[in-house]
Amino acid sequence: MQNRISALFGIRYPIIQGGMIWCSGHKLVSAVSNAGGLGLLGSASMTSEELRDEIRKTRELTSKPFGVNVPLLYMHSEEIMNVIVEEGVKIVFTSAGNPKTWTSFLQEKGIIVAHVVSNSKFAEKADLANVDAIVAEGFEAGGHNGFEETTTMTLIPSVRKVTAKPFIAAGGIATGRAMLAALILGADGVQIGSRFVASTESEAHQNFKDEIVKAKEGSTNLLLKKIVPVRLLNNKFSKEIIKAESEGKNREELSELLGRGRAKLGMSDGDIEEGELEIGQVSAIINKVMPVSAIIDDIMLDYRVAKKQVDYVRFNF
Amino acid sequence: MQNRISALFGIRYPIIQGGMIWCSGHKLVSAVSNAGGLGLLGSASMTSEELRDEIRKTRELTSKPFGVNVPLLYMHSEEIMNVIVEEGVKIVFTSAGNPKTWTSFLQEKGIIVAHVVSNSKFAEKADLANVDAIVAEGFEAGGHNGFEETTTMTLIPSVRKVTAKPFIAAGGIATGRAMLAALILGADGVQIGSRFVASTESEAHQNFKDEIVKAKEGSTNLLLKKIVPVRLLNNKFSKEIIKAESEGKNREELSELLGRGRAKLGMSDGDIEEGELEIGQVSAIINKVMPVSAIIDDIMLDYRVAKKQVDYVRFNF
Repeated sequence: MQNRISALFGIRYPIIQGGMIWCSGHKLVSAVSNAGGLGLLGSASMTSEELRDEIRKTRELTSKPFGVNVPLLYMHSEEIMNVIVEEGVKIVFTSAGNPKTWTSFLQEKGIIVAHVVSNSKFAEKADLANVDAIVAEGFEAGGHNGFEETTTMTLIPSVRKVTAKPFIAAGGIATGRAMLAALILGADGVQIGSRFVASTESEAHQNFKDEIVKAKEGSTNLLLKKIVPVRLLNNKFSKEIIKAESEGKNREELSELLGRGRAKLGMSDGDIEEGELEIGQVSAIINKVMPVSAIIDDIMLDYRVAKKQVDYVRFNF
Repeated sequence: MQNRISALFGIRYPIIQGGMIWCSGHKLVSAVSNAGGLGLLGSASMTSEELRDEIRKTRELTSKPFGVNVPLLYMHSEEIMNVIVEEGVKIVFTSAGNPKTWTSFLQEKGIIVAHVVSNSKFAEKADLANVDAIVAEGFEAGGHNGFEETTTMTLIPSVRKVTAKPFIAAGGIATGRAMLAALILGADGVQIGSRFVASTESEAHQNFKDEIVKAKEGSTNLLLKKIVPVRLLNNKFSKEIIKAESEGKNREELSELLGRGRAKLGMSDGDIEEGELEIGQVSAIINKVMPVSAIIDDIMLDYRVAKKQVDYVRFNF
């Protein structure tokens, strides 16, 4: 267990489960951690007291390391951080904000801090803020995303150039082959979102899981770039956004069209036409809802087979 | 030399140089073929007689296999194909059109046909048209691109699922590490564009090459999606397009803004502000103009080092 990511977090495989809103509750998180990955609670869709409850329930289901994802753009980050400290959580992934804000506060309390970025400029800032690990997420990833639209294939080498920290790649990764490719490109581990949304244990509504299984190439689009870019599965709502954007609607008009509570409506309440369904391009190759342990077994088998194949003749020049 | 792509084309390494307009003349093509890859003349920026001249000049400079790229959307495809047959070229890459149109005509004359696609639906069509090889190009690639915006990381496994044909991945590939990653994801070879544009031998204007070296993450954008999506380097012209698109300008208005001859103006004449500069996202990690032989040596060294590193402990789980 010498890999820098597995060593840092005390886990078996360098597989992080993205802490996704409305999907990443105690069942998913404990299942991932029990299967040898790192589960992350998605605090962005929880009040601080809901998070406290989720942390406690997770602990009842696993003795393995797990963490909490905290997007820093919400108003209640401080309450969330206090709950994390009070409950003795040892791993925090921050995103969507300045990595300096919380890193040393958390580290002084013995908490390992990873920070999520979408470009190498922000990776440098995270490195300077002395985070313990950096996650870089490519254009193909589901949910909120960077403005540069840099894909995982091009982002990994760029980030690797600017930091020597343990580095987790995200976006477009759902298989062992993709995990091996990410490691070869320079990452130390991977963060997987979409495939875990489509797990038995995820809190996502069954309707949303069914849509992921049906998704094909071109079924997702990066939208709302005039507000904050977000990758959404095609539905009635996303088509309205695409039309409005094509017509040149401005930020205010788009915000009005977006309204409030669309993410909960889609992913948690299962309104697959009017809700926001945040999912990655890789949903195109996800064809089955599986239990987490089977997903991780499948990824690791695929990884090991791919690794052996590198010695085959088709790779020899 | 058992790899399916190197065996098919009779080359040493499964590295194809994209047949790029205004960049891929006889100097680049012969240099790539002499260095063990497959050079492709970019016929889209040539008249049929210019192509004839380029084929003859290429043959003076190399005895190795080379080919011609033919986008099928231009009016003079037939003239181009006749020149290819008359001059005894043995390899043709078609793109931007129906693979059925020319494949059997060319194959009956002993010509190997590869077809370029941007999604797995078109890959299936190419497979049914019985092409000899399929190229699939991801969202991060320079120049003309697909509507689905599928990235190389997610496109390769999708295409690999629908065809057993020899398969070349393109988009975001400029290093040996990326080549190994593409092979692991399921490709048999790679097509490299941007890095060869930035070679000593490419016909690109020196001003354009200098801009590639300066490019950073976020320096390219996929634009003109209401006409045909094309990835361009940021400049005065691209900013005008971005503004016009943001304001909701329609296809006609955008076509007028685009006008004619922008690609030549930028890439061949070197007007880096008013011209179209077609280049991939991977330009962000291209930091030097190098001779082709040094580029291929560098890619293959990087490939071999990366391949050995797969046995290192950080890859072992």
